[in-house]
Amino acid sequence: MQTRVDLNADAGESLGRWKLGHDSELMVHVTSVNVACGFHASDPVTMRDSVRTAVATGTAIGSHPGLPDLVGFGRRRMALRPDEAAQLVVYQTGALQATARAEGAEVVHVKPHGALYGMALTDPDITSAITEAVLRLDPDLMIFWLAGPTAELARSLGATVAREGFADLDYTDEGHIIVEPEPKAKDPDAVAQQAVDLLEGHVTSTTGKRLDVEVDTICLHGDRPNAVEIADTLVRRLDDLGVERVPAVQLLRG
Amino acid sequence: MQTRVDLNADAGESLGRWKLGHDSELMVHVTSVNVACGFHASDPVTMRDSVRTAVATGTAIGSHPGLPDLVGFGRRRMALRPDEAAQLVVYQTGALQATARAEGAEVVHVKPHGALYGMALTDPDITSAITEAVLRLDPDLMIFWLAGPTAELARSLGATVAREGFADLDYTDEGHIIVEPEPKAKDPDAVAQQAVDLLEGHVTSTTGKRLDVEVDTICLHGDRPNAVEIADTLVRRLDDLGVERVPAVQLLRG
Amino acid sequence: MQTRVDLNADAGESLGRWKLGHDSELMVHVTSVNVACGFHASDPVTMRDSVRTAVATGTAIGSHPGLPDLVGFGRRRMALRPDEAAQLVVYQTGALQATARAEGAEVVHVKPHGALYGMALTDPDITSAITEAVLRLDPDLMIFWLAGPTAELARSLGATVAREGFADLDYTDEGHIIVEPEPKAKDPDAVAQQAVDLLEGHVTSTTGKRLDVEVDTICLHGDRPNAVEIADTLVRRLDDLGVERVPAVQLLRG
Amino acid sequence: MQTRVDLNADAGESLGRWKLGHDSELMVHVTSVNVACGFHASDPVTMRDSVRTAVATGTAIGSHPGLPDLVGFGRRRMALRPDEAAQLVVYQTGALQATARAEGAEVVHVKPHGALYGMALTDPDITSAITEAVLRLDPDLMIFWLAGPTAELARSLGATVAREGFADLDYTDEGHIIVEPEPKAKDPDAVAQQAVDLLEGHVTSTTGKRLDVEVDTICLHGDRPNAVEIADTLVRRLDDLGVERVPAVQLLRG
Repeated sequence: MQTRVDLNADAGESLGRWKLGHDSELMVHVTSVNVACGFHASDPVTMRDSVRTAVATGTAIGSHPGLPDLVGFGRRRMALRPDEAAQLVVYQTGALQATARAEGAEVVHVKPHGALYGMALTDPDITSAITEAVLRLDPDLMIFWLAGPTAELARSLGATVAREGFADLDYTDEGHIIVEPEPKAKDPDAVAQQAVDLLEGHVTSTTGKRLDVEVDTICLHGDRPNAVEIADTLVRRLDDLGVERVPAVQLLRG
Repeated sequence: MQTRVDLNADAGESLGRWKLGHDSELMVHVTSVNVACGFHASDPVTMRDSVRTAVATGTAIGSHPGLPDLVGFGRRRMALRPDEAAQLVVYQTGALQATARAEGAEVVHVKPHGALYGMALTDPDITSAITEAVLRLDPDLMIFWLAGPTAELARSLGATVAREGFADLDYTDEGHIIVEPEPKAKDPDAVAQQAVDLLEGHVTSTTGKRLDVEVDTICLHGDRPNAVEIADTLVRRLDDLGVERVPAVQLLRG
Repeated sequence: MQTRVDLNADAGESLGRWKLGHDSELMVHVTSVNVACGFHASDPVTMRDSVRTAVATGTAIGSHPGLPDLVGFGRRRMALRPDEAAQLVVYQTGALQATARAEGAEVVHVKPHGALYGMALTDPDITSAITEAVLRLDPDLMIFWLAGPTAELARSLGATVAREGFADLDYTDEGHIIVEPEPKAKDPDAVAQQAVDLLEGHVTSTTGKRLDVEVDTICLHGDRPNAVEIADTLVRRLDDLGVERVPAVQLLRG
Repeated sequence: MQTRVDLNADAGESLGRWKLGHDSELMVHVTSVNVACGFHASDPVTMRDSVRTAVATGTAIGSHPGLPDLVGFGRRRMALRPDEAAQLVVYQTGALQATARAEGAEVVHVKPHGALYGMALTDPDITSAITEAVLRLDPDLMIFWLAGPTAELARSLGATVAREGFADLDYTDEGHIIVEPEPKAKDPDAVAQQAVDLLEGHVTSTTGKRLDVEVDTICLHGDRPNAVEIADTLVRRLDDLGVERVPAVQLLRG
């Protein structure tokens, strides 16, 4: 079993007057945080506040670019050309980089959000276009992609890729994740167990199929109603097993 | 009379299917270009194309952040807190910086657009908040402010400021510019003469009052119907007078 | 003391994934509900759901059109021409009318939201333009305006106007309301007392000045953290005093 | 050959500062106009101006609701639930109905735009949901659907359907239209000939296959560079052939 892993969570998914998620509680537990960039959630001032929370908790900051769809929270697929998808990532990542720099912080990774992440899983041209754009923007930026063919494709293009597993999402037999339109509460122990499975190199699909998988980072969703309880449980479990939580940037760049 | 000056124009003000302006023709003439960043005009793909045009014509690239108001083209004032205004500038400038970097180019200046520029003229707290945010983002970024108290305030905060004059806008007696909701055609010779006045250190208000002014950069509006003819005329006039066009970044940084 | 009054609350102020307010609890208590229309809050599907809740609770439905500013929740003033402001109201009211009709319901009043309401208070041209546009759209639509000069102006134009008082907002000496950027919890008894004052024909400004006022409808803000408790308290108080809650449409049209 | 037909064109596809199309020239020729409603193009004030132009030219007014995607001009498919798609149509149609009413005019038909129209062609659940929502909104509203299975499905649900053909778009062998991301100039005579083919009950696919088709209305795209020349040519051709242009509402309702 793997003894070191990055934990990541999406954060900064409020929007002006609307509050969502449990950022400060979650950031205490995770080692990397993916900050929404204004297209599926957040806005310039909220992004600044998210960066400040990440700085205060010492969490590594990544961008979490999404589709331009606030009403759908970036979870409705859109027919985009690969270069359009790539520019969405460049634009939003740059907006967060500037926000971070103005607060004395740095963006170290990129993790596409929701349907954009899902579109890349099923369209290698989108994976390539996004990965190459991130490399052109800054070859030092890591990118998070689902462990498996997507992550491998991105590595073959020269990117530093954190292979991601999901402790709180179901997997199809093909190893794809099933994204819920609106995350519900989940049993914290089941989530923790799925994380342990991932650290042992496997995960079970909805039909009971065992899939082999190697991960560098494990994701928790911050907008689940019991997200904080889940994180507490998972972290205790990892501590009990002696698994060290380490930011992906440190894990992969050493 | 001043023998060197920067000419700047707003550009990249198309939006998806909607085309506006005469970017490639104008960029041949101007030495600095202010690229819209998606809030009052443009979108991620259009921004990339604008950067490519600027690279092809060797024009210095600046960000042109605006209010979040596509329908009003960023020309309707909004009641923003200074820190909100500043974050709009940081966000949009970062989005353009990343877009430029992914194309092998660099953003060298910031020029707020339309009502945001106008709000800063009448509210020093907004001028200060924007200027300080740009300095925190990157102390090497120049900022364009209207020649006069706004530019002076920004200089006093430590920023490298290009003092701007407008060849194609009217001035009030107080030295403020009068922004038209939708720019009309203007007499090219009159515009050229106002530019020459500016180079000689003065400009005439709508009531005939002579105002003293010192400028580093002169703005032309790219969305005027005869913008290209105006630029042609102005450039010929400057050439005849032996005035050299030099990017502000070179003028101010040597 | 007045023995009949309409109670109104803003509702439907969620947006896609983001939930806000306590619509079903509040609609049990109020007799008129102002439904957000997609510009400052809400979206087409949320509007449909708000209409269904209003139908289920038998609450009279009004439109609550706002400025086009989701990030600012329609609470940041914008420099609009009166005809622009009026068209915002027509567009959003029509969108809600159609949504209601498709659910077998009807929109009976219009109440501008936030900064748009506030802009009308200080600019009679905006009040007139909005009121006249509503009359052109449908002379049977009631409009809610702050009791005082704004409501009087609208009445003089021929509109059926419900004169509004606010139980949970402070008043200036000039009789204007003070809108908070983000409503906080308030003492339910103090709110109930201010409602009783309004029914007795007066309200006290922040400096202690007594202002005379006659109201047809009293507003409660649904996005206050303790909005439901406030409504409970107020309704009990009105019941104790024998004040009947009646939809404005019934009060004014008999 | 059919001796009466409706000609329709999309119009009102400007957005604030950005102008697109040739509305006043086109509306002279067509008998029905589909007015953009603010989601893929247009804004409240532009809609009002489009209605005024239609009133001045005596053209029948329809709504042209699109996907919420200004940057993509509503031409990028989005994964929507059928009820979401239907609510987009209800919302936008209502907004135009109110705008028309405030100008003393009436909306008589609904024609979904771009990718929304295309999604309905390939997903009968979307066709049904939209058609049923339009019927619930107002059973007197006609709906335009592509001649063939989509129009037939809508008719079977009880709607008054104008079966549409396209004179300026290519057809696949399956009888689907091929929507260009950005319409180019087309040979006016070829467009006129395709219209005549449609009136004779057939159209030829890109592979040369002859498809049988019966149409009530023929569409011209107003954002083609030579849209006006195309319309001139087509109208002359129809006049020469003695084909009368009649609004669909009159053709179908007598």
